[in-house]
Amino acid sequence: MAEGSVDEVDYVNGRTRLYGIVGDPIVQVRSPEMVTWEMRRRGLDAVLVPIHVREAEFDDVLPRLMRVANLDGLIFTIPFKQRACGLADALGPQARGAGALNALARGSDGRWHGEMFDGLGCVEALLRAGVALAGRRVALVGLGGAGAAIAAAIAAERPASMRVFDLDAARCERAVATVRTISPETAVTVGPPQVDDADVLVNATPVGMLGDPRRPVDAASLPRSLVVLDAIVKPQITPLLAFAQAQGCRTVRGREMMRGQISRIVEFFAATTGTSGAGAEAGAP
Amino acid sequence: MAEGSVDEVDYVNGRTRLYGIVGDPIVQVRSPEMVTWEMRRRGLDAVLVPIHVREAEFDDVLPRLMRVANLDGLIFTIPFKQRACGLADALGPQARGAGALNALARGSDGRWHGEMFDGLGCVEALLRAGVALAGRRVALVGLGGAGAAIAAAIAAERPASMRVFDLDAARCERAVATVRTISPETAVTVGPPQVDDADVLVNATPVGMLGDPRRPVDAASLPRSLVVLDAIVKPQITPLLAFAQAQGCRTVRGREMMRGQISRIVEFFAATTGTSGAGAEAGAP
Repeated sequence: MAEGSVDEVDYVNGRTRLYGIVGDPIVQVRSPEMVTWEMRRRGLDAVLVPIHVREAEFDDVLPRLMRVANLDGLIFTIPFKQRACGLADALGPQARGAGALNALARGSDGRWHGEMFDGLGCVEALLRAGVALAGRRVALVGLGGAGAAIAAAIAAERPASMRVFDLDAARCERAVATVRTISPETAVTVGPPQVDDADVLVNATPVGMLGDPRRPVDAASLPRSLVVLDAIVKPQITPLLAFAQAQGCRTVRGREMMRGQISRIVEFFAATTGTSGAGAEAGAP
Repeated sequence: MAEGSVDEVDYVNGRTRLYGIVGDPIVQVRSPEMVTWEMRRRGLDAVLVPIHVREAEFDDVLPRLMRVANLDGLIFTIPFKQRACGLADALGPQARGAGALNALARGSDGRWHGEMFDGLGCVEALLRAGVALAGRRVALVGLGGAGAAIAAAIAAERPASMRVFDLDAARCERAVATVRTISPETAVTVGPPQVDDADVLVNATPVGMLGDPRRPVDAASLPRSLVVLDAIVKPQITPLLAFAQAQGCRTVRGREMMRGQISRIVEFFAATTGTSGAGAEAGAP
């Protein structure tokens, strides 16, 4: 070791607060680098690490992991979003609606609070693009795990109408019921998106992912006034978004939705644990 | 968030292997920044985080924590070094001698291997300063936790003689027994250091720490040939080391001992888990 060389990293120390993402498998997750960045940007001395817990070990390991005194929060990914509800002392409205959560934080009272942010990232990304959903007409295609959460999050914004669609009829029924519970005043219908009759189009299907050349919406043209959000992260510009851009529409990428979700999760962590950073930029990497 | 801004940290991701230091309290530890740095210097994608486990929770939490599949190793600090032996499937020679360990790693066979490095850092730091202990005469003062571990580690190098001292007679007896077990050929005596009769002097007492102006050794002068190591980390130059430097002696600082220990622990982690870095400098921060 050279004399005078730096021999310490500057991003973890004895006071660093600990967060984790729990899943099985775990290598594919992106929260460690993205959530840690966002926490540091807010001046928090914290790190979010991958925690690989095998499915069979979940019930035994998680309650003990939550007793680590400097562990303040957890994110849950596949296949634990439903089971994680059993770990929470209190559930937020999105988690109650979805019967699943992806973020759990220890409150200053020692109780664990859970909420589901899979859909809220979509709302946040649209807001950042200048699109408030209250009173708008929204078409949503794809009602799997992410799509169902997006339906619930959009409903909570009280749009005038929602048209939802999935090839699985049971998913459609569940989404309609969720929307009606959350926002009775929203007119909800089932069917393929009618783009001439919508202000915002959201794709939550995998159609167009990773080299798939298809578009999830069968329309020869799109009105210029339509805002199009695609939940797919790779590629950044999906066939749907490329088509929408060519038609002059405003577009929002899956990556923006992920950023929106991370921002909301870190806000939830900070608000629940009662921690706040040294300043917006002080801890920036 | 500005368009094009970096929004990820580069030191943790889904594939990062997890290590922890377990203690109660935890805020004072220095392993997170120093061990993580050393692991990255060796090209390992790994991070060592602080894990605060309260004493009453240790027996319940630790066995479950060790089932986290991407957790490869743990360091133990106060008050857990003795209890941690119960978690190991196999103990190294220093841990067996000390009845305590400070590093535990999961072998490629899934078994957990424990070893004690508190003393080995002293041997490593002396080696780096060009001092091999085999056949030498060593005086050691202070036989608490660190001093006892140093006695065992020095004995394993087969010095010609060891003179050990502590104000607590029981500690002296235990150290003598340990030295005799590890190295029957080493002549071990009890008493205050006689600097004219030693090649190496090691201080493992707290005398001289943090503004304490005293020296742990009552000698008006030191032979120039004496090598003096002080286990105290703060201040870097203790009154003993300042005196030794003034006398023309070679000196080794507590910080070098800590570096030596960290280097040995990371070697142990890498060798036990069967991981190795992408290259000596590839992962340097």
